[in-house]
Amino acid sequence: MSLVSRDPVLLTPGPLTTSLQTKSAMLRDWGSWDAAFNAVTAKVRQQLLKIIHGEETHVCVPMQGSGTFSVEAAINTLVPRDGHVLVLINGAYGKRMARLTEMMGRRVSVFETPEDVPTTAEDVERLLAADSSITHVGLIHCETSTGILNPLEEIADVVARHGKGLILDAMSSFGALEIDAKKIQFDAVIAASGKCIEGPPGMGFVLVRKSVLEKCAGHSTSLSLDLYDQWVYMEKTTQWRFTPPTHILVALHTALNQFEAEGGQAARLQRYTNNYQTLMAGLEELGLQSFLKPEIQAPIIVTVHAPVNAKYDFKTFYETVRSKGFVLYPGKLTQAETFRVGCIGAIGTQEMRSAIHAMKDALAEMV
Amino acid sequence: MSLVSRDPVLLTPGPLTTSLQTKSAMLRDWGSWDAAFNAVTAKVRQQLLKIIHGEETHVCVPMQGSGTFSVEAAINTLVPRDGHVLVLINGAYGKRMARLTEMMGRRVSVFETPEDVPTTAEDVERLLAADSSITHVGLIHCETSTGILNPLEEIADVVARHGKGLILDAMSSFGALEIDAKKIQFDAVIAASGKCIEGPPGMGFVLVRKSVLEKCAGHSTSLSLDLYDQWVYMEKTTQWRFTPPTHILVALHTALNQFEAEGGQAARLQRYTNNYQTLMAGLEELGLQSFLKPEIQAPIIVTVHAPVNAKYDFKTFYETVRSKGFVLYPGKLTQAETFRVGCIGAIGTQEMRSAIHAMKDALAEMV
Ligand SMILES: Cc1ncc(COP(=O)(O)O)c(C=O)c1O
Ligand SMILES: Cc1ncc(COP(=O)(O)O)c(C=O)c1O
Repeated sequence: MSLVSRDPVLLTPGPLTTSLQTKSAMLRDWGSWDAAFNAVTAKVRQQLLKIIHGEETHVCVPMQGSGTFSVEAAINTLVPRDGHVLVLINGAYGKRMARLTEMMGRRVSVFETPEDVPTTAEDVERLLAADSSITHVGLIHCETSTGILNPLEEIADVVARHGKGLILDAMSSFGALEIDAKKIQFDAVIAASGKCIEGPPGMGFVLVRKSVLEKCAGHSTSLSLDLYDQWVYMEKTTQWRFTPPTHILVALHTALNQFEAEGGQAARLQRYTNNYQTLMAGLEELGLQSFLKPEIQAPIIVTVHAPVNAKYDFKTFYETVRSKGFVLYPGKLTQAETFRVGCIGAIGTQEMRSAIHAMKDALAEMV
Repeated sequence: MSLVSRDPVLLTPGPLTTSLQTKSAMLRDWGSWDAAFNAVTAKVRQQLLKIIHGEETHVCVPMQGSGTFSVEAAINTLVPRDGHVLVLINGAYGKRMARLTEMMGRRVSVFETPEDVPTTAEDVERLLAADSSITHVGLIHCETSTGILNPLEEIADVVARHGKGLILDAMSSFGALEIDAKKIQFDAVIAASGKCIEGPPGMGFVLVRKSVLEKCAGHSTSLSLDLYDQWVYMEKTTQWRFTPPTHILVALHTALNQFEAEGGQAARLQRYTNNYQTLMAGLEELGLQSFLKPEIQAPIIVTVHAPVNAKYDFKTFYETVRSKGFVLYPGKLTQAETFRVGCIGAIGTQEMRSAIHAMKDALAEMV
């Protein structure tokens, strides 16, 4: 225990550690009708679109709420009332996408693989060939419940060849992993402010193919989550339809400026990869095993098997590591006892190395 | 024009001016799974409930998104699929409540009075007597599009006598005008972080009668906006279902502490009333007329008729006043040319007096 109360480093998949510069941007109040604020909205929309090189094909529609709200908005707006969504599942976020699609009354089919098995392009090929009523495919890019990476490029190719719409939940990968609208085809990519862009949580956004969104009037059964309405209003007025999270947006803008200054997606991926490799090397030193094989593991969040130590329980481990300055994340698996460590946020290998030391000391105290 | 770039005072109905203490609370990052953060969530829920003296009858369910998201969540969760909502309209927010109810597929009837005419208890009595299929009544407490106050107590009595559920949008009045669960009966009161509690915008909350909410499983057609699901999960785990707006919540907590220290709702109403009276006296000096009669005007936001000056246009007036340090709000009326001035936020009579001077100078410059 220390008398110094510095904030702990968050090794969590969002909310995560943001820079002081990003947080400081929230020290001002903005009028939501004011031109200065609307200019920030316009700039953020441009900056987000640029990350996927989507300036010519897609539009950015920001949305209030957490990431799930944007996933629900994308499905409710893009999928017509008589549409049929195939959701590819290997974890909690895939399940959630299927559940919210069903709740809003759209037809949904699911294809589920175990949590350590990516969906393959062959799976999708077979499923689309077998049921021509499917209109959209829902895919989780990095399934954060384990950290598994699904093969976006290959699946996008199959979906495009069948002429279906791909709706990609890239919540935990956007900004870190490459998603290039010029190389692969998708109708929508969904992410949020508080993930790899390293802003505070509080808003999401959907990058939608413009030619698709133009045909989506009247689809949504929710006013708040109607992306089409949000888009049309914003284009017409430069404003948000309903009160925007002004402080969060301005902080996101500041975070995006830092993202660009760092060198964009490639640089961010490099930093996270360094964090990831430092983590993996450290886990090996501690005799801890990661849940996924390295070839299907995204450098975003790592699921770790609980140590084989009779005295181990996650709560004590979590609290001990926290008292040493690092916040871990619980596992989300039902079969195996695990915990998770995020590699994302405004942190580098030094923080990761210190976290390893803290985990080592915590484990030693548990024997 | 001044070289000093102090932030302008926001005379807007939210986002509004918040205290530096409130904004400074956003300078820390919080893990959403962490006990320290969950303790803040629990405390905020208690503090909000206390404002309506609802500790014994109601529960507080916070909701991500802007205020409209919470209105939609309340209707989608409280009104059964075969329910029938009567929405009382005298402005844009009443219209919006009716529209979102219709979009989600619930049956809706509307009763509309002109924008300067409150709904009366007699109206509601007559409407409920005429159609027994109505299950819920939707009322806007202070209709922010003009600032008109609807007679909550009288209408609540009629709704209760008919055994119907009252859903109250108190977005712009909560915390300033009295809403006492011990004196009047309602199923739900809806408000948001960025209004009279003087927090930053980014989340809403619904105070729901517990015995009602307990019966609302399976009503919602939206996962994100399912208040029942949000409530059950929060009660079980102390956490939010989906990523909370951590910085906004912690700032709201800080704002609530200041609200309590100031003396709660009565003190806040007193300060806003002082602001309002200063504004009204100033408008008279400027020869400007308010749109509403004083007896139906809430001390929250005032709609002002545009000056009878051939050179006047709102945009120039707005920008001139802004350059002098004050952000006004446009009117929301279709028939009359107006602008609005908010009396709420972390401001006092001194700011209001300075704003009057700025408006005076701006008008003089327009002749
Ligand atoms: C892949 C994925 N999808 C959806 C979500 C849901 O986002 P939120 O918790 O912001 O609603 C998350 C959150 O971490 C995620 O990682
Ligand atoms: C009475 C009323 N209802 C609803 C809303 C909608 O809230 P939001 O803009 O946060 O969605 C407002 C916003 O000012 C309001 O004043």
